[in-house]
Amino acid sequence: MKNNISSPVIRRLPRYYRCLLALNKAGIKRISSGELAKKLDSTASQIRQDFNYFGGFGQQGYGYNVPQLQAEIGRILGLETPKKTILIGAGYLGRAIVNQIDFEKKGFTLIGIFEKIEALTGQVVKGIPVRNINDMDEFCKENFPKVAVLCVSKNEAEQLLEPLIRLGVTGFWNFSQAELTTKNQNVFIENVLFSDSLLNLSYHLNQK
Amino acid sequence: MKNNISSPVIRRLPRYYRCLLALNKAGIKRISSGELAKKLDSTASQIRQDFNYFGGFGQQGYGYNVPQLQAEIGRILGLETPKKTILIGAGYLGRAIVNQIDFEKKGFTLIGIFEKIEALTGQVVKGIPVRNINDMDEFCKENFPKVAVLCVSKNEAEQLLEPLIRLGVTGFWNFSQAELTTKNQNVFIENVLFSDSLLNLSYHLNQK
Repeated sequence: MKNNISSPVIRRLPRYYRCLLALNKAGIKRISSGELAKKLDSTASQIRQDFNYFGGFGQQGYGYNVPQLQAEIGRILGLETPKKTILIGAGYLGRAIVNQIDFEKKGFTLIGIFEKIEALTGQVVKGIPVRNINDMDEFCKENFPKVAVLCVSKNEAEQLLEPLIRLGVTGFWNFSQAELTTKNQNVFIENVLFSDSLLNLSYHLNQK
Repeated sequence: MKNNISSPVIRRLPRYYRCLLALNKAGIKRISSGELAKKLDSTASQIRQDFNYFGGFGQQGYGYNVPQLQAEIGRILGLETPKKTILIGAGYLGRAIVNQIDFEKKGFTLIGIFEKIEALTGQVVKGIPVRNINDMDEFCKENFPKVAVLCVSKNEAEQLLEPLIRLGVTGFWNFSQAELTTKNQNVFIENVLFSDSLLNLSYHLNQK
Protein backbone atom coordinates (compact mmCIF):
# COMPACT_ATOMS: atom_id res chain seq x y z
CA MET A 1 0.00 0.00 0.00
CA LYS A 2 1.35 3.41 -0.95
CA ASN A 3 1.65 6.25 1.53
CA ASN A 4 0.11 9.65 0.99
CA ILE A 5 -2.97 8.38 -0.80
CA SER A 6 -5.02 11.40 -1.73
CA SER A 7 -8.16 12.20 0.19
CA PRO A 8 -10.54 11.84 -2.84
CA VAL A 9 -9.22 8.31 -3.48
CA ILE A 10 -9.82 7.38 0.17
CA ARG A 11 -13.29 8.94 0.07
CA ARG A 12 -14.19 6.65 -2.86
CA LEU A 13 -13.32 3.47 -0.93
CA PRO A 14 -16.56 3.32 1.10
CA ARG A 15 -18.53 3.54 -2.16
CA TYR A 16 -16.55 0.68 -3.64
CA TYR A 17 -17.14 -1.26 -0.45
CA ARG A 18 -20.91 -0.64 -0.53
CA CYS A 19 -21.10 -1.72 -4.15
CA LEU A 20 -19.12 -4.91 -3.52
CA LEU A 21 -21.28 -5.70 -0.50
CA ALA A 22 -24.41 -5.42 -2.67
CA LEU A 23 -22.85 -7.58 -5.42
CA ASN A 24 -21.80 -10.17 -2.87
CA LYS A 25 -25.29 -10.25 -1.38
CA ALA A 26 -26.70 -10.71 -4.89
CA GLY A 27 -24.45 -13.76 -5.30
CA ILE A 28 -22.14 -12.21 -7.89
CA LYS A 29 -18.69 -13.69 -7.35
CA ARG A 30 -16.66 -12.10 -10.12
CA ILE A 31 -16.74 -8.72 -11.85
CA SER A 32 -14.58 -6.86 -14.36
CA SER A 33 -13.43 -3.31 -13.72
CA GLY A 34 -15.64 -2.24 -16.66
CA GLU A 35 -18.79 -3.74 -15.13
CA LEU A 36 -17.88 -2.34 -11.72
CA ALA A 37 -17.37 1.09 -13.33
CA LYS A 38 -20.86 0.95 -14.85
CA LYS A 39 -22.41 0.18 -11.47
CA LEU A 40 -20.50 3.06 -9.88
CA ASP A 41 -21.03 5.55 -12.70
CA SER A 42 -17.24 5.75 -12.89
CA THR A 43 -14.64 4.53 -15.42
CA ALA A 44 -12.64 1.31 -15.47
CA SER A 45 -9.37 3.25 -15.55
CA GLN A 46 -10.36 5.32 -12.52
CA ILE A 47 -11.18 2.18 -10.56
CA ARG A 48 -7.97 0.39 -11.59
CA GLN A 49 -5.95 3.51 -10.76
CA ASP A 50 -7.59 3.80 -7.32
CA PHE A 51 -7.06 0.10 -6.58
CA ASN A 52 -3.41 0.35 -7.59
CA TYR A 53 -2.79 2.60 -4.59
CA PHE A 54 -3.65 -0.38 -2.42
CA GLY A 55 -1.70 -2.96 -4.37
CA GLY A 56 -4.06 -3.64 -7.28
CA PHE A 57 -6.30 -6.54 -6.14
CA GLY A 58 -7.27 -7.66 -9.63
CA GLN A 59 -6.24 -10.12 -12.28
CA GLN A 60 -6.07 -8.75 -15.83
CA GLY A 61 -8.62 -10.25 -18.18
CA TYR A 62 -10.15 -12.24 -15.38
CA GLY A 63 -11.88 -9.64 -13.27
CA TYR A 64 -12.06 -9.19 -9.52
CA ASN A 65 -13.10 -11.84 -7.06
CA VAL A 66 -16.01 -10.02 -5.35
CA PRO A 67 -15.91 -11.61 -1.86
CA GLN A 68 -12.11 -11.30 -1.70
CA LEU A 69 -12.13 -7.70 -2.88
CA GLN A 70 -14.89 -6.79 -0.43
CA ALA A 71 -12.95 -8.36 2.45
CA GLU A 72 -9.74 -6.66 1.35
CA ILE A 73 -11.28 -3.19 1.11
CA GLY A 74 -13.10 -3.80 4.40
CA ARG A 75 -9.74 -4.59 6.00
CA ILE A 76 -8.19 -1.41 4.55
CA LEU A 77 -11.16 0.57 5.89
CA GLY A 78 -10.52 -0.89 9.34
CA LEU A 79 -13.88 -2.65 9.65
CA GLU A 80 -12.29 -5.63 11.37
CA THR A 81 -10.80 -3.56 14.17
CA PRO A 82 -13.40 -2.88 16.89
CA LYS A 83 -13.17 0.67 18.20
CA LYS A 84 -14.82 1.62 21.50
CA THR A 85 -17.05 4.60 20.82
CA ILE A 86 -19.03 7.11 22.86
CA LEU A 87 -21.72 9.48 21.63
CA ILE A 88 -22.25 12.88 23.19
CA GLY A 89 -25.62 14.58 22.79
CA ALA A 90 -28.83 12.52 23.01
CA GLY A 91 -31.07 15.10 21.33
CA TYR A 92 -32.81 14.60 17.99
CA LEU A 93 -29.54 14.37 16.06
CA GLY A 94 -27.82 11.96 18.44
CA ARG A 95 -30.86 9.69 18.44
CA ALA A 96 -31.13 9.84 14.66
CA ILE A 97 -27.48 8.81 14.29
CA VAL A 98 -27.78 5.94 16.78
CA ASN A 99 -30.94 4.69 15.09
CA GLN A 100 -29.70 5.06 11.54
CA ILE A 101 -26.12 3.78 11.79
CA ASP A 102 -25.22 0.18 12.44
CA PHE A 103 -22.04 1.04 14.36
CA GLU A 104 -21.10 -2.60 15.01
CA LYS A 105 -21.08 -3.47 11.31
CA LYS A 106 -18.70 -0.59 10.70
CA GLY A 107 -16.28 -1.71 13.42
CA PHE A 108 -17.46 0.79 16.04
CA THR A 109 -18.68 -0.50 19.41
CA LEU A 110 -20.97 2.05 21.03
CA ILE A 111 -20.30 1.77 24.78
CA GLY A 112 -21.77 5.01 26.13
CA ILE A 113 -24.12 7.93 25.43
CA PHE A 114 -23.80 11.21 27.32
CA GLU A 115 -26.09 14.19 27.63
CA LYS A 116 -26.11 17.41 29.64
CA ILE A 117 -29.91 17.79 29.85
CA GLU A 118 -30.88 15.93 32.99
CA ALA A 119 -34.38 15.11 31.78
CA LEU A 120 -32.84 12.97 29.01
CA THR A 121 -30.39 11.06 31.21
CA GLY A 122 -31.53 7.67 32.39
CA GLN A 123 -33.37 7.06 29.13
CA VAL A 124 -32.24 4.13 27.00
CA VAL A 125 -31.38 4.56 23.30
CA LYS A 126 -30.91 1.36 21.28
CA GLY A 127 -30.15 -0.52 24.46
CA ILE A 128 -27.62 1.97 25.79
CA PRO A 129 -28.39 4.11 28.85
CA VAL A 130 -28.03 7.88 28.45
CA ARG A 131 -25.60 9.07 31.16
CA ASN A 132 -25.02 12.49 32.60
CA ILE A 133 -22.15 14.26 30.85
CA ASN A 134 -20.62 14.94 34.27
CA ASP A 135 -19.88 11.22 34.50
CA MET A 136 -18.02 11.15 31.18
CA ASP A 137 -14.50 11.70 32.55
CA GLU A 138 -14.73 8.82 34.97
CA PHE A 139 -16.36 6.60 32.35
CA CYS A 140 -13.53 7.30 29.89
CA LYS A 141 -10.85 6.63 32.51
CA GLU A 142 -12.45 3.26 33.20
CA ASN A 143 -13.48 2.23 29.68
CA PHE A 144 -10.96 3.89 27.32
CA PRO A 145 -13.14 4.84 24.33
CA LYS A 146 -11.10 5.69 21.22
CA VAL A 147 -13.83 7.44 19.23
CA ALA A 148 -16.32 10.20 20.11
CA VAL A 149 -19.41 11.09 18.08
CA LEU A 150 -20.24 14.75 18.74
CA CYS A 151 -23.94 15.59 18.40
CA VAL A 152 -23.71 18.81 20.39
CA SER A 153 -23.58 22.53 19.61
CA LYS A 154 -20.59 24.30 18.06
CA ASN A 155 -19.42 25.75 21.37
CA GLU A 156 -19.80 22.48 23.23
CA ALA A 157 -17.88 20.59 20.55
CA GLU A 158 -15.03 23.11 20.64
CA GLN A 159 -14.89 22.83 24.42
CA LEU A 160 -15.02 19.02 24.42
CA LEU A 161 -12.27 18.41 21.85
CA GLU A 162 -9.10 18.88 23.91
CA PRO A 163 -10.38 17.23 27.12
CA LEU A 164 -11.47 14.18 25.11
CA ILE A 165 -8.08 13.99 23.40
CA ARG A 166 -6.45 14.07 26.84
CA LEU A 167 -8.76 11.20 27.85
CA GLY A 168 -7.36 9.13 24.97
CA VAL A 169 -9.92 9.73 22.21
CA THR A 170 -8.15 9.72 18.82
CA GLY A 171 -11.11 9.79 16.44
CA PHE A 172 -13.97 12.28 16.24
CA TRP A 173 -17.13 12.07 14.16
CA ASN A 174 -18.26 15.65 14.47
CA PHE A 175 -21.83 16.71 13.67
CA SER A 176 -21.65 20.00 15.57
CA GLN A 177 -21.36 22.25 12.50
CA ALA A 178 -18.09 23.64 13.85
CA GLU A 179 -15.18 22.70 11.61
CA LEU A 180 -12.93 21.19 14.26
CA THR A 181 -9.20 20.95 13.65
CA THR A 182 -6.23 19.75 15.67
CA LYS A 183 -2.46 19.88 15.28
CA ASN A 184 -2.25 16.51 17.07
CA GLN A 185 -0.97 14.02 14.48
CA ASN A 186 -2.47 11.07 16.36
CA VAL A 187 -5.99 12.42 16.10
CA PHE A 188 -8.33 12.36 13.11
CA ILE A 189 -11.49 14.47 12.94
CA GLU A 190 -14.25 13.71 10.45
CA ASN A 191 -16.37 16.84 10.20
CA VAL A 192 -19.89 16.37 8.84
CA LEU A 193 -20.79 19.89 7.78
CA PHE A 194 -24.45 19.94 6.78
CA SER A 195 -24.29 23.57 5.70
CA ASP A 196 -21.47 22.96 3.24
CA SER A 197 -23.46 20.09 1.78
CA LEU A 198 -26.56 22.30 1.42
CA LEU A 199 -24.48 25.01 -0.28
CA ASN A 200 -23.13 22.42 -2.71
CA LEU A 201 -26.74 21.60 -3.65
CA SER A 202 -27.45 25.33 -3.93
CA TYR A 203 -24.49 25.83 -6.28
CA HIS A 204 -25.64 23.09 -8.63
CA LEU A 205 -29.26 24.31 -8.65
CA ASN A 206 -27.96 27.78 -9.48
CA GLN A 207 -26.22 26.40 -12.61
CA LYS A 208 -29.43 24.92 -14.03
CA MET B 1 -16.82 31.67 -15.11
CA LYS B 2 -15.49 28.48 -16.71
CA ASN B 3 -17.67 25.49 -17.42
CA ASN B 4 -16.95 22.00 -16.14
CA ILE B 5 -15.47 23.13 -12.86
CA SER B 6 -14.40 20.01 -11.00
CA SER B 7 -16.43 18.78 -8.10
CA PRO B 8 -13.60 19.18 -5.48
CA VAL B 9 -13.22 22.86 -6.44
CA ILE B 10 -16.97 23.40 -6.03
CA ARG B 11 -16.94 21.55 -2.69
CA ARG B 12 -14.30 23.97 -1.41
CA LEU B 13 -16.46 27.05 -2.14
CA PRO B 14 -18.69 26.74 0.96
CA ARG B 15 -15.54 26.61 3.12
CA TYR B 16 -14.22 29.77 1.50
CA TYR B 17 -17.60 31.36 2.02
CA ARG B 18 -17.70 30.43 5.72
CA CYS B 19 -14.20 31.77 6.27
CA LEU B 20 -15.01 35.08 4.52
CA LEU B 21 -18.23 35.41 6.52
CA ALA B 22 -16.23 35.04 9.76
CA LEU B 23 -13.60 37.56 8.58
CA ASN B 24 -16.30 40.00 7.56
CA LYS B 25 -18.03 39.64 10.94
CA ALA B 26 -14.65 40.28 12.63
CA GLY B 27 -14.39 43.55 10.69
CA ILE B 28 -11.52 42.43 8.44
CA LYS B 29 -11.96 44.15 5.10
CA ARG B 30 -8.93 43.01 3.14
CA ILE B 31 -6.91 39.78 3.07
CA SER B 32 -4.10 38.35 0.94
CA SER B 33 -4.34 34.87 -0.54
CA GLY B 34 -1.46 33.89 1.77
CA GLU B 35 -3.33 34.95 4.91
CA LEU B 36 -6.52 33.35 3.64
CA ALA B 37 -4.58 30.13 2.97
CA LYS B 38 -3.30 30.06 6.56
CA LYS B 39 -6.83 30.40 7.92
CA LEU B 40 -8.03 27.60 5.68
CA ASP B 41 -5.03 25.32 6.19
CA SER B 42 -4.59 25.48 2.41
CA THR B 43 -2.03 27.13 0.11
CA ALA B 44 -2.13 30.52 -1.61
CA SER B 45 -1.66 28.89 -5.01
CA GLN B 46 -4.56 26.48 -4.41
CA ILE B 47 -6.84 29.36 -3.47
CA ARG B 48 -5.77 31.52 -6.43
CA GLN B 49 -6.18 28.53 -8.76
CA ASP B 50 -9.69 27.80 -7.39
CA PHE B 51 -10.72 31.46 -7.66
CA ASN B 52 -9.46 31.63 -11.25
CA TYR B 53 -12.21 29.20 -12.25
CA PHE B 54 -14.69 31.91 -11.32
CA GLY B 55 -12.83 34.81 -12.89
CA GLY B 56 -10.16 35.46 -10.27
CA PHE B 57 -11.74 38.05 -7.90
CA GLY B 58 -8.43 39.43 -6.60
CA GLN B 59 -5.95 42.18 -7.25
CA GLN B 60 -2.30 41.10 -7.26
CA GLY B 61 -0.24 42.58 -4.45
CA TYR B 62 -3.32 44.17 -2.96
CA GLY B 63 -5.27 41.26 -1.58
CA TYR B 64 -8.95 40.46 -1.71
CA ASN B 65 -11.74 42.79 -0.63
CA VAL B 66 -13.45 40.57 1.97
CA PRO B 67 -17.06 41.86 1.77
CA GLN B 68 -16.94 41.91 -2.05
CA LEU B 69 -15.45 38.41 -2.24
CA GLN B 70 -17.98 37.07 0.26
CA ALA B 71 -20.85 38.55 -1.75
CA GLU B 72 -19.42 37.24 -5.00
CA ILE B 73 -18.96 33.67 -3.74
CA GLY B 74 -22.40 33.85 -2.12
CA ARG B 75 -23.85 34.79 -5.49
CA ILE B 76 -22.01 31.91 -7.20
CA LEU B 77 -23.36 29.55 -4.53
CA GLY B 78 -26.88 30.78 -5.28
CA LEU B 79 -27.56 32.17 -1.81
CA GLU B 80 -29.45 35.12 -3.26
CA THR B 81 -31.94 32.94 -5.13
CA PRO B 82 -34.75 31.80 -2.81
CA LYS B 83 -35.72 28.20 -3.45
CA LYS B 84 -39.01 26.82 -2.11
CA THR B 85 -38.21 23.71 -0.10
CA ILE B 86 -40.13 20.86 1.52
CA LEU B 87 -38.86 18.35 4.06
CA ILE B 88 -40.14 14.80 4.18
CA GLY B 89 -39.82 12.85 7.42
CA ALA B 90 -40.43 14.58 10.75
CA GLY B 91 -38.67 11.96 12.89
CA TYR B 92 -35.50 12.59 14.90
CA LEU B 93 -33.39 13.28 11.82
CA GLY B 94 -35.86 15.63 10.14
CA ARG B 95 -36.28 17.61 13.36
CA ALA B 96 -32.52 17.76 13.90
CA ILE B 97 -32.02 19.13 10.38
CA VAL B 98 -34.77 21.73 10.74
CA ASN B 99 -33.42 22.84 14.11
CA GLN B 100 -29.75 22.91 13.10
CA ILE B 101 -29.91 24.46 9.63
CA ASP B 102 -30.81 28.07 9.01
CA PHE B 103 -32.44 27.35 5.64
CA GLU B 104 -33.35 30.99 4.98
CA LYS B 105 -29.74 32.17 5.29
CA LYS B 106 -28.73 29.57 2.72
CA GLY B 107 -31.38 30.69 0.23
CA PHE B 108 -33.83 27.86 0.98
CA THR B 109 -37.37 28.74 2.06
CA LEU B 110 -38.90 25.85 3.99
CA ILE B 111 -42.59 25.87 3.08
CA GLY B 112 -43.74 22.42 4.17
CA ILE B 113 -42.95 19.38 6.29
CA PHE B 114 -44.51 15.98 5.55
CA GLU B 115 -44.69 12.78 7.55
CA LYS B 116 -46.39 9.40 7.16
CA ILE B 117 -46.80 8.65 10.88
CA GLU B 118 -50.18 10.12 11.78
CA ALA B 119 -49.25 10.74 15.42
CA LEU B 120 -46.62 13.25 14.28
CA THR B 121 -48.83 15.16 11.84
CA GLY B 122 -50.40 18.33 13.20
CA GLN B 123 -47.30 19.06 15.30
CA VAL B 124 -45.38 22.25 14.56
CA VAL B 125 -41.62 22.20 13.94
CA LYS B 126 -39.87 25.59 13.91
CA GLY B 127 -43.16 27.27 13.08
CA ILE B 128 -44.08 24.91 10.26
CA PRO B 129 -46.98 22.45 10.62
CA VAL B 130 -46.20 18.79 9.97
CA ARG B 131 -48.63 17.61 7.28
CA ASN B 132 -49.72 14.14 6.29
CA ILE B 133 -47.64 12.79 3.41
CA ASN B 134 -50.88 11.95 1.59
CA ASP B 135 -51.40 15.70 1.14
CA MET B 136 -47.98 16.23 -0.45
CA ASP B 137 -49.05 15.89 -4.09
CA GLU B 138 -51.73 18.52 -3.78
CA PHE B 139 -49.44 20.80 -1.79
CA CYS B 140 -46.75 20.57 -4.49
CA LYS B 141 -49.25 21.24 -7.28
CA GLU B 142 -50.34 24.40 -5.46
CA ASN B 143 -47.00 25.65 -4.08
CA PHE B 144 -44.35 24.42 -6.56
CA PRO B 145 -41.44 23.52 -4.26
CA LYS B 146 -38.14 23.13 -6.13
CA VAL B 147 -36.17 21.33 -3.42
CA ALA B 148 -36.95 18.30 -1.24
CA VAL B 149 -35.04 17.29 1.88
CA LEU B 150 -35.42 13.53 2.34
CA CYS B 151 -35.25 12.38 5.97
CA VAL B 152 -36.92 9.05 5.33
CA SER B 153 -35.80 5.43 4.95
CA LYS B 154 -33.89 4.10 1.93
CA ASN B 155 -36.96 2.47 0.41
CA GLU B 156 -39.14 5.51 0.93
CA ALA B 157 -36.53 7.80 -0.63
CA GLU B 158 -36.20 5.55 -3.67
CA GLN B 159 -39.98 5.52 -4.06
CA LEU B 160 -40.33 9.29 -3.61
CA LEU B 161 -37.66 10.37 -6.10
CA GLU B 162 -39.46 10.01 -9.44
CA PRO B 163 -42.88 11.25 -8.25
CA LEU B 164 -41.23 14.36 -6.77
CA ILE B 165 -39.32 15.00 -10.01
CA ARG B 166 -42.64 14.77 -11.88
CA LEU B 167 -44.06 17.33 -9.41
CA GLY B 168 -41.30 19.76 -10.41
CA VAL B 169 -38.66 19.17 -7.72
CA THR B 170 -35.17 19.63 -9.23
CA GLY B 171 -32.99 19.50 -6.12
CA PHE B 172 -32.75 16.76 -3.49
CA TRP B 173 -30.91 16.87 -0.18
CA ASN B 174 -30.97 13.19 0.62
CA PHE B 175 -30.30 11.87 4.14
CA SER B 176 -31.89 8.49 3.53
CA GLN B 177 -28.61 6.54 3.27
CA ALA B 178 -29.61 5.35 -0.18
CA GLU B 179 -27.28 6.74 -2.82
CA LEU B 180 -29.92 8.21 -5.13
CA THR B 181 -29.08 8.85 -8.77
CA THR B 182 -31.00 10.12 -11.76
CA LYS B 183 -30.35 10.40 -15.47
CA ASN B 184 -32.42 13.60 -15.55
CA GLN B 185 -29.99 16.40 -16.42
CA ASN B 186 -32.24 19.03 -14.81
CA VAL B 187 -32.09 17.38 -11.42
CA PHE B 188 -29.27 17.49 -8.87
CA ILE B 189 -29.13 15.12 -5.89
CA GLU B 190 -26.88 15.84 -2.92
CA ASN B 191 -26.49 12.55 -1.06
CA VAL B 192 -25.41 12.81 2.58
CA LEU B 193 -24.10 9.34 3.28
CA PHE B 194 -23.33 9.03 6.98
CA SER B 195 -21.93 5.52 6.59
CA ASP B 196 -19.36 6.61 4.02
CA SER B 197 -18.28 9.40 6.34
CA LEU B 198 -17.93 6.95 9.25
CA LEU B 199 -15.86 4.60 7.09
CA ASN B 200 -13.59 7.49 6.14
CA LEU B 201 -12.97 8.06 9.86
CA SER B 202 -12.39 4.33 10.28
CA TYR B 203 -9.82 4.29 7.47
CA HIS B 204 -7.82 7.11 9.00
CA LEU B 205 -7.91 5.57 12.49
CA ASN B 206 -6.69 2.33 10.98
CA GLN B 207 -3.61 4.12 9.59
CA LYS B 208 -2.55 5.43 13.00
